[in-house]
Amino acid sequence: MTLESDFDLAAIYVSDAQYNRNICVDTSPQAVRLYLLYNHWVLKVLLYVFILVDLCLAVFEDPAVVPLPLWATMLVELLCLFVFTFRLTHYAKVIPREKFWKDPKNICIIVILMLTLLDMIIYGALKASDQYGVRWSRVLRPLLLVNVTEGRQLRRAFRSIRNALPEISYVFLLFIFSILIFSLMALKLMGKRGLKTLDGSPYFTNYFEIVFELYVLVTTANSPDVMMPAYNSSFFFAIFFIFYILVNTYIFMSVFLAVVYNNYKKYLKEEIRQLVRVKRQKMVRAFSVLQEVSEQGGVPTVNHAHWSRLVRRVQPRMSNAHRELLWSVLDHQNQGFIGQVQFVQVADLLNIEVITLKSRPHPFHSWFPALYSSTPCLLLCRLVRHRAFVILYDIIILVNAVFIGLDEDNPLISYSEWMFLVLYLLEILLKLSVFEPRAFFSRHSFWNWFDTIIVICALIATIINSAITSSGGYTSRQILDIIFILRVLRLIRVVDSIKRFRTIINTLIRIGPAILTFGQLILVIYYIFAIVGMELFKDKVKFFEADSSDPEKSFCGNPQLKGTSFAHLNYCKNNFNSIVSSFILLVELTVVNQWHDILHSGFATVTHTSARIFFVLFHIVVVIIIINIFVAFVLEAFFVEYSVEKSGLQTSLEKKIEELELGVEQYLDDNLVNAMETENDLERSESTANLPTLVFKIASKSK
Amino acid sequence: MTLESDFDLAAIYVSDAQYNRNICVDTSPQAVRLYLLYNHWVLKVLLYVFILVDLCLAVFEDPAVVPLPLWATMLVELLCLFVFTFRLTHYAKVIPREKFWKDPKNICIIVILMLTLLDMIIYGALKASDQYGVRWSRVLRPLLLVNVTEGRQLRRAFRSIRNALPEISYVFLLFIFSILIFSLMALKLMGKRGLKTLDGSPYFTNYFEIVFELYVLVTTANSPDVMMPAYNSSFFFAIFFIFYILVNTYIFMSVFLAVVYNNYKKYLKEEIRQLVRVKRQKMVRAFSVLQEVSEQGGVPTVNHAHWSRLVRRVQPRMSNAHRELLWSVLDHQNQGFIGQVQFVQVADLLNIEVITLKSRPHPFHSWFPALYSSTPCLLLCRLVRHRAFVILYDIIILVNAVFIGLDEDNPLISYSEWMFLVLYLLEILLKLSVFEPRAFFSRHSFWNWFDTIIVICALIATIINSAITSSGGYTSRQILDIIFILRVLRLIRVVDSIKRFRTIINTLIRIGPAILTFGQLILVIYYIFAIVGMELFKDKVKFFEADSSDPEKSFCGNPQLKGTSFAHLNYCKNNFNSIVSSFILLVELTVVNQWHDILHSGFATVTHTSARIFFVLFHIVVVIIIINIFVAFVLEAFFVEYSVEKSGLQTSLEKKIEELELGVEQYLDDNLVNAMETENDLERSESTANLPTLVFKIASKSK
Repeated sequence: MTLESDFDLAAIYVSDAQYNRNICVDTSPQAVRLYLLYNHWVLKVLLYVFILVDLCLAVFEDPAVVPLPLWATMLVELLCLFVFTFRLTHYAKVIPREKFWKDPKNICIIVILMLTLLDMIIYGALKASDQYGVRWSRVLRPLLLVNVTEGRQLRRAFRSIRNALPEISYVFLLFIFSILIFSLMALKLMGKRGLKTLDGSPYFTNYFEIVFELYVLVTTANSPDVMMPAYNSSFFFAIFFIFYILVNTYIFMSVFLAVVYNNYKKYLKEEIRQLVRVKRQKMVRAFSVLQEVSEQGGVPTVNHAHWSRLVRRVQPRMSNAHRELLWSVLDHQNQGFIGQVQFVQVADLLNIEVITLKSRPHPFHSWFPALYSSTPCLLLCRLVRHRAFVILYDIIILVNAVFIGLDEDNPLISYSEWMFLVLYLLEILLKLSVFEPRAFFSRHSFWNWFDTIIVICALIATIINSAITSSGGYTSRQILDIIFILRVLRLIRVVDSIKRFRTIINTLIRIGPAILTFGQLILVIYYIFAIVGMELFKDKVKFFEADSSDPEKSFCGNPQLKGTSFAHLNYCKNNFNSIVSSFILLVELTVVNQWHDILHSGFATVTHTSARIFFVLFHIVVVIIIINIFVAFVLEAFFVEYSVEKSGLQTSLEKKIEELELGVEQYLDDNLVNAMETENDLERSESTANLPTLVFKIASKSK
Repeated sequence: MTLESDFDLAAIYVSDAQYNRNICVDTSPQAVRLYLLYNHWVLKVLLYVFILVDLCLAVFEDPAVVPLPLWATMLVELLCLFVFTFRLTHYAKVIPREKFWKDPKNICIIVILMLTLLDMIIYGALKASDQYGVRWSRVLRPLLLVNVTEGRQLRRAFRSIRNALPEISYVFLLFIFSILIFSLMALKLMGKRGLKTLDGSPYFTNYFEIVFELYVLVTTANSPDVMMPAYNSSFFFAIFFIFYILVNTYIFMSVFLAVVYNNYKKYLKEEIRQLVRVKRQKMVRAFSVLQEVSEQGGVPTVNHAHWSRLVRRVQPRMSNAHRELLWSVLDHQNQGFIGQVQFVQVADLLNIEVITLKSRPHPFHSWFPALYSSTPCLLLCRLVRHRAFVILYDIIILVNAVFIGLDEDNPLISYSEWMFLVLYLLEILLKLSVFEPRAFFSRHSFWNWFDTIIVICALIATIINSAITSSGGYTSRQILDIIFILRVLRLIRVVDSIKRFRTIINTLIRIGPAILTFGQLILVIYYIFAIVGMELFKDKVKFFEADSSDPEKSFCGNPQLKGTSFAHLNYCKNNFNSIVSSFILLVELTVVNQWHDILHSGFATVTHTSARIFFVLFHIVVVIIIINIFVAFVLEAFFVEYSVEKSGLQTSLEKKIEELELGVEQYLDDNLVNAMETENDLERSESTANLPTLVFKIASKSK
């Protein structure tokens, strides 16, 4: 007899396998129940909310965007620390004690929590006695993102980077060697010529300056300025610089990309191989919990009832039909039970997203059957489904684009906006009256959702705006901004009509979730650099509002900046005076252009030449490593797109759907690729009667 | 009986197959003899010399670096045209008439020649009557490089680009669409705020200006300047720009790389597949010319004597031993004849570079046998072969680097240079006395050649320099420059001592020949843009030497440039006034940084806003397409390096070498990877007697 707690345990194994969690749970019923609670989505969301709050504290701490008293931020941080401790204790209760202490990520969290507490005490004491203190533990905050149980993907990315580092560092050393050699040559060739730079200082006479200038040249930030004095004196020096750029900018940077890409891929592959192994182990364990041996010496099996109960526990919201479909894939001989080999596949089967489309008749059909079957109505249906309808609306959108571009102060133009809004609303209403609403707003109809939300928002904003305008004669800039953004966003819809564009866009959308992991990676790195940068450079450069008449405005409030190009270019707002401006500055440094100017005539001038270390380090970490990984990542996504391969399971599921004649494509004239986009066409009024009540579609296939 | 002319024909087929030439030669003995002449290396070199001369004419034509009278350049060009016509006629004689007229590359050459002649006549007439004329046919010159018979690789590269264009253009359209949408949003959000740019002009009020500015932002050339006015007014606008950069600079540019890489690779693969087919056909034809059918109904074969004669004709400089080795690979059952299957492999076998090392005793050994076998001499040999010897010289090189960096005016330092020279000479002499000189200077000992040439050149230059200095008390700057370059180049040697570096460097060296193809591609594109640029912008911007006191110097001789940043940054030499400065300017535009400034405050100011078209077109062609292909190309080279696979033939050749116990590795303690570098160690005095007189090594294997 299989107990209730056994099902709990099996459900845990299966869902761990499904979501690639590699956690060794204690098998006692108590731990199992705690673990189910631990994985509850509310707790996870709460954890991330508190991590976010903890990270956002930087907005309120000195140097602050919105200053809050010290006790307030300290209190919030204590609350965060408490939540993290609670979560960790919960985790400790779930897994065996010795496993807990062997796991570096738990140790990391404990160390971070202890250090933060220590820092808070020290800082509080220092502040209380009015002394200078540094909140150094703030650098550790983003590491929580990496070390919480849910940061699996992020940890994997960091591990891949760490593993790729030795290979990268060899190329990096060679690259540095090349810069050193070229610098030496530059010193010998140009140092003795008595050349002058633009500001009259001697050109290329100090070896270490040359090294730095040539490093900057690799980033192309000081091209062609660094070359001009030499080039002006002779054509031949240009050859030196061109050769330098060819070797160091083009060849070495490509080699970096190649090495990063290759290593990242290699280690990721290894990680995935390991994941598959762990997944298999989990499923085998789940099987051994539920298995029954029917006869003497027979093979252990799991019967249909147990399987159903298990799946219902793992995914309570899965439809019965979907579950039965999966069973029929596993038990293809219809024996009523499955062996271990089939059972192991369950985790992957659950991950294949199958859209269950209920082929319901349109509500209008049941409400007003006579009207719905009338000739004008049928005609309308055919009209809306026609390709010309799409083209018509594409033209309307393009006309709208021209109108948006024209001056909105013209009353004719502003009235026309109402017309366009009505046209868009009409489109949605027409579509809704023709297609079944629940199908129209199904989870995967990205563009339908997109359209509807934007049009409704635009409608609301426009009404509010005209209400304000007509009542007070005053136009709110914020609401207008929102209206403009919504209007312009509406234009993007046009892309979906062209098939080639759609495939590119779909690939980009598919990258989305992975970009989220990447975004966390960038966030961690940026946050650390921003905190360090704020401690080093805060308030060295001040920003004055445009309407300020402060005499210090022209040199960013720092006399040392008088006459520098930093002040001249009005870069005062590029500073480390708050976490927000630090982040924006770091983005500018990532883009690389002018980083040299920001550093050289800005932060190095107000502090010390060694400020270069911070900036160069940032360049190496973010531009050479992280951005290359990002590029590698997009490359890989596109290469995979170009060589589509379906997993065996996906094919067998598909085959089953076809066998059962429940596939979407059977009811559509369009080919597979169009199946997704014309999903809404599914419900053809004329053929409703012949349709089975349910059809399935594999989500990832044609997207 | 096989005739002499049959051997000629077969040799042609084999060498065509070997060098992947796809030419349908007429099979008449006369045409075959002409074709042999056509492929003679002297004629090929001559052709390239004349193409080079033709291209270099731009240096002497108006606008010239070195002005020559019109009749001189015209005469040289006529000579070039004559040579090209001659070469084409030669080609026409070799292949069947109908094939000649069907080949687009021949038609291309004829059209180019005709147009050039026409242009020369028109231009000459216009000049004679003192009217304005444009030498427009100069744009066609680089196309000769593509269309000559030998430009196979280049044509292949261009074909791959052309085939990839449709795919690239879809992404490009989407990219342009994205820029247009973002620009519209920027116009609506920022246009009405009354913001001002740095120079006081209204900010983001003209749609087309915004589109251009945002296009420039994709290249990062105007970051963060373009964002500053908006950012200074509100934090939120920075988010707009960051999102823009993320989408257009990072994602779209990566997608471009992905698409270019993928398509380039795909089409190149197809081309190679076709090449292999053609190669097979050629070899089958060669076989059918030489084949003999020994008995009734027997399989046709080629016997050893015929094969030898054929190979001797194809590669006259191949050693007998090498040829016999190849035969033994083909005829592994020692039957004295080979069938068609084996014969087809000959072309590939000939392409595998096998180094024949004659294991001769050291000349000293035969000249002074007593001295050479004495204890001190043997000790010296062991010393030089020791790892410590290499390390010692690496340290010497590093010390030398420090000395070079120090001021050479110090007499101690300048004397030390003599010491280093002597040390380096001593190293080479020691190595020469220990290793067999012909092995030391074998074709694949890159570093030995490198060292020797540099040290000897440095010695000569230093002697000349001190002769001049001591006689006239005057130091020649040019000779000093050469000495410095040689000294610094010597330092590169250090890289070879570290294995990890060596593999990276070797991969880069291996890319070398292919980069040459790529260099031709760039040359063709640059030349066309340079010629067009010269016609559009020549003499709009003038450069004055540093010591000139001309009042026009401060604004590059063009009053319209007064006060522009172009003049301020002293960019006057970045102009289109000669082919050389055009090329350098185009390199600067390829590097992208500041291209916006060069265009906007430079060439657009002195001509018209539409100058942008030229610059943007250059950016699209060179940066988006060509540079991405270059990166794709380096990536591919490294990926191939990471997944080394030997062809089956190479392995069987290797196996044969091992079987015959003639492999290098049998006589070395080091492993395979070191085999190459320690090639010189081969001749161990103590084991000379036991060595066979010949050993083989596959060149590409361990390089």
